[in-house]
Amino acid sequence: MTDALETLKTSIKALVEVKKYATLRDILSTMNAADIASLLEDIDDQMVPLLYRLLPKELAADTFVEMEPDTQEMLIRGFSDSELKEVVDELYVDDAADLVEEMPANVVKRILMTADAEKRQMINNILKYPDDSAGSIMTTEFVELRPHMTVEDAILHIRRSGINKETINNCYVTSKDRRLIGVVTIRDLIMNESEQTMDQLMEDNIISVETITDQEEVAQMFSKYGFLAMPVVDTESRLVGIVTIDDVLDVLEEEATEDIEKMAAIVPADKPYLRQTTFDLWKSRIPWLMLLMISATFTGMIITSFENALAKFVILTAYIPMLMDTGGNSGGQSSATVIRALSLHDVEFSDLPRVIWKEMRVALLCGLTLAVCNFAKLLLFDRLAVPVALVICLTLVVTIFCAKVIGCTLPMIAHRIGFDPAVMASPFITTLVDAISLLVYFQFATRILGLS
Amino acid sequence: MTDALETLKTSIKALVEVKKYATLRDILSTMNAADIASLLEDIDDQMVPLLYRLLPKELAADTFVEMEPDTQEMLIRGFSDSELKEVVDELYVDDAADLVEEMPANVVKRILMTADAEKRQMINNILKYPDDSAGSIMTTEFVELRPHMTVEDAILHIRRSGINKETINNCYVTSKDRRLIGVVTIRDLIMNESEQTMDQLMEDNIISVETITDQEEVAQMFSKYGFLAMPVVDTESRLVGIVTIDDVLDVLEEEATEDIEKMAAIVPADKPYLRQTTFDLWKSRIPWLMLLMISATFTGMIITSFENALAKFVILTAYIPMLMDTGGNSGGQSSATVIRALSLHDVEFSDLPRVIWKEMRVALLCGLTLAVCNFAKLLLFDRLAVPVALVICLTLVVTIFCAKVIGCTLPMIAHRIGFDPAVMASPFITTLVDAISLLVYFQFATRILGLS
Repeated sequence: MTDALETLKTSIKALVEVKKYATLRDILSTMNAADIASLLEDIDDQMVPLLYRLLPKELAADTFVEMEPDTQEMLIRGFSDSELKEVVDELYVDDAADLVEEMPANVVKRILMTADAEKRQMINNILKYPDDSAGSIMTTEFVELRPHMTVEDAILHIRRSGINKETINNCYVTSKDRRLIGVVTIRDLIMNESEQTMDQLMEDNIISVETITDQEEVAQMFSKYGFLAMPVVDTESRLVGIVTIDDVLDVLEEEATEDIEKMAAIVPADKPYLRQTTFDLWKSRIPWLMLLMISATFTGMIITSFENALAKFVILTAYIPMLMDTGGNSGGQSSATVIRALSLHDVEFSDLPRVIWKEMRVALLCGLTLAVCNFAKLLLFDRLAVPVALVICLTLVVTIFCAKVIGCTLPMIAHRIGFDPAVMASPFITTLVDAISLLVYFQFATRILGLS
Repeated sequence: MTDALETLKTSIKALVEVKKYATLRDILSTMNAADIASLLEDIDDQMVPLLYRLLPKELAADTFVEMEPDTQEMLIRGFSDSELKEVVDELYVDDAADLVEEMPANVVKRILMTADAEKRQMINNILKYPDDSAGSIMTTEFVELRPHMTVEDAILHIRRSGINKETINNCYVTSKDRRLIGVVTIRDLIMNESEQTMDQLMEDNIISVETITDQEEVAQMFSKYGFLAMPVVDTESRLVGIVTIDDVLDVLEEEATEDIEKMAAIVPADKPYLRQTTFDLWKSRIPWLMLLMISATFTGMIITSFENALAKFVILTAYIPMLMDTGGNSGGQSSATVIRALSLHDVEFSDLPRVIWKEMRVALLCGLTLAVCNFAKLLLFDRLAVPVALVICLTLVVTIFCAKVIGCTLPMIAHRIGFDPAVMASPFITTLVDAISLLVYFQFATRILGLS
């Protein structure tokens, strides 16, 4: 699949060079918009407008939507007003709104001037909703039916108006005051007799979201209910738009990326990696590095306060990294598991006692397994004395126990008080567990080895 | 939304207690299958079969699909053969195959005995494909049309056969030998004149996957092309099934969970957290903990070999945790970013030089920022001598540099040689960076402070 695409890219580049435009047009017309867009991203910038103009009108608009903002901007700057109008007219209103959000002010002005009044109004309507809300990802182009319409009326209505709608698979039945009263699928229309009316056919137990609902919640509802589209209503239950499942796929990917970034102590960015500048990356990484570096001061202070003991028993220092890493890894496992379970709604705050109880048992099991193996290794390979090995292995068990309990508890508490649990992931837990493991280590050393 | 559901649960529990079955039936009939399922999961086990039997037949089957395997098994064990047949008959074949995979052998036997011969055949067909392949998530119930059919024929065909199909939104045109030759959407059928034929209407530039294509790749294609369904063909291009987008949502969630688990040094499990036993959790966590604990031996050996130097300059020990943690966090940031970019196909192996160059610059910028702040802190607060502070800060810069370069390179190399890049995440990088940071630390200490 991908290899075939690579071969195609090579041939197209060759054809551009020998100016075989008719052949190029024929090849491009058989291709899918997403593939053409990825081809245009790969090709020399100067050739892009030329290839783009070879595309049939509708395919051109579809391809335009799939391109990266940089390429879109370059193309728009080269467009005449009438070329721009052709593209904007073909765009679905949610894609047009996305475009307006990505472009610099002067380009936006040209786009809005080219759009007809109705479309401009619709674009502006979408833009007024907060980022990451259902309103900001919805489209206002949907099929709206009335309760008294028959199947025949409805199909006629769709044939007349459906061409500009993003989907006709779900149609929405509204009352005179635009309140949403039912949903009819295209399947219902096909499968039923032509004289049946919408109020007989429609599903009136409707699940909808509000314009301000968070997009992550919208995505969760899609995967819970298996919908292809979800109606969006305003505070007075009037239907204002629909969210379609293709936009939800993007939301799911975006949210998973955000979680992974937060869990790796990165402030999430909304651009793909290669499009971020060095400074962008620095900005999203330095805050947590700085904070965690400063927190590590405490670990240093703990070591300093046991400086004399360590000087007497330098061998203990050699096991500090192993203890700290194992503690960090154990805590990181628990926090990652719980953070993911929280974001999939597999676990709620009320499950906290169950979760802690489970983690405590897992911690003991893991701790004992590791301690036994480690004890054998310390005696047989490192040839340590039994009391020293005992100090190390007891610390291991206690550290893993604390790490797992903290690792599962902190994300759930964060979630409960309205913070993002993903922030309580491995790097944060590691810093905390480091301090704990050292304190435990020196306590055991003091008691068992008689250090002070 | 969720609160309303909670209130409803309370009322339903109350109604069960006073045995108001007619009222309960009325309430349940207005509810969505996914909501009823989540209600039944919450309620006392003994009441579940009772409530379930109140549901209308079709809603009962839909609800059954949404339930957890434990509850499904409990219900099946209570079903009479005819009740079981009712449910199995209503299930789509891909859901039936999922059920068969989850149930213990004796329950599976009953399910397959109850299913009619055709359905049993279809279930077995799906089960023969490897886990996580397109074949294992596809359904074999799709609308198949012939090229010579007119729109009118096609709609008639759908009305006759569509009731059992999972989707009618995409219909597939096949030749006599069942080769896939085109795709027609329901929109094409509605929007065109009734005498047009399928070969005139159909899109013949088809994107399809093979039965053995990995489900992750299938999901990526859905988000790239914005499809609602994807045809699945065998090695001879014969159409054998379709994957629908609702199954892709599950795949996307599952794959993101797997990535997060691998990145946190957990061997992925396919059960939700609360359904895993202590032993399950131990099994998925202990391998990496053990491996990483053993690898930490090297860090210990490095410290041991500088034991004498450390004894003379114990203060150096106090900064080991800070250096190791900052190195680990820096490397973890880079690896998490690159792993995610790889799985979204934002980055490919051929981008390696670009990625390394970017990370080198970010590393220098981050390293210098942290080193300058740290230097000030070491002199002003910790009151260290300039040479000691210099050793610590130079180590910081070099460690961050190595951590970021390793952090971005290892996942890309792993990806290239066919391993899962997610394994090269924070815990692994941390262990490696720990050793590097200590070696660098002791080198600088030896040179600048004259230790040996």
